[in-house]
Amino acid sequence: MEGFLKVEHIGIAIKNIESSKALFTKLFGKESYKEEGVESEGVNTLFFQLGETKIELLEATQADSPIAKFVEKRGEGIHHIAYEVENIEAEMQRLKNEGFILLNDSPKKGADNKLVCFLHPKTTNGVLVEICQEIRNS
Amino acid sequence: MEGFLKVEHIGIAIKNIESSKALFTKLFGKESYKEEGVESEGVNTLFFQLGETKIELLEATQADSPIAKFVEKRGEGIHHIAYEVENIEAEMQRLKNEGFILLNDSPKKGADNKLVCFLHPKTTNGVLVEICQEIRNS
Repeated sequence: MEGFLKVEHIGIAIKNIESSKALFTKLFGKESYKEEGVESEGVNTLFFQLGETKIELLEATQADSPIAKFVEKRGEGIHHIAYEVENIEAEMQRLKNEGFILLNDSPKKGADNKLVCFLHPKTTNGVLVEICQEIRNS
Repeated sequence: MEGFLKVEHIGIAIKNIESSKALFTKLFGKESYKEEGVESEGVNTLFFQLGETKIELLEATQADSPIAKFVEKRGEGIHHIAYEVENIEAEMQRLKNEGFILLNDSPKKGADNKLVCFLHPKTTNGVLVEICQEIRNS
């Protein structure tokens, strides 16, 4: 199936996962369900599930990680939107053909058992876009 | 049912609805389904449906509207996340009790047949949050 299927998650950059965990639990009226570190990206992540979409809080664990730089430059806030696709390699090719700039040439392993690829925000009206596909065990 | 139910829509501030319509149609691999002006907010809106969540593009129609100011200050990008709630007045009271700052005292009429209320981003980790409830004809 071609095109974007749903909003898989929204990534929100925050400074401190413990205080934001308390804050978002109060905001959503709902508990988070998973905490996961992604060492290659220098982040800790915390997930909430709201309907079919997850909210992923992102805390930098290294001073030079992309999330640390984002928070330093723009403050805490929405970092990216991730859309689920059926076939990430086919979508990457489709988007490349449409003139979008991909930030990685092949899918990479992200949090939450996903293959992911990011698009450059300058080709997407200032919005950092991630596409992702569940890793299937075949 | 208490708490936030799902991500109803994501609002993205853009400069020009015609060029962004073409761009997001290519990005999503999917057509938009509705265009709607909200005169009281000084915006034109364009909607895409992805799964249970809508993407709402927001173009300012007046130089002094909130969207015009946002784009001038921060450029195009994600403006707010709207969460669906079952009972907006009960949620507004719950959030007030939790210490969040509401930007309006009573629900107001938004786009797409919704009652809406915004929360001040300084109490929500820098993220402008909207809660919304479908207007039911009773």
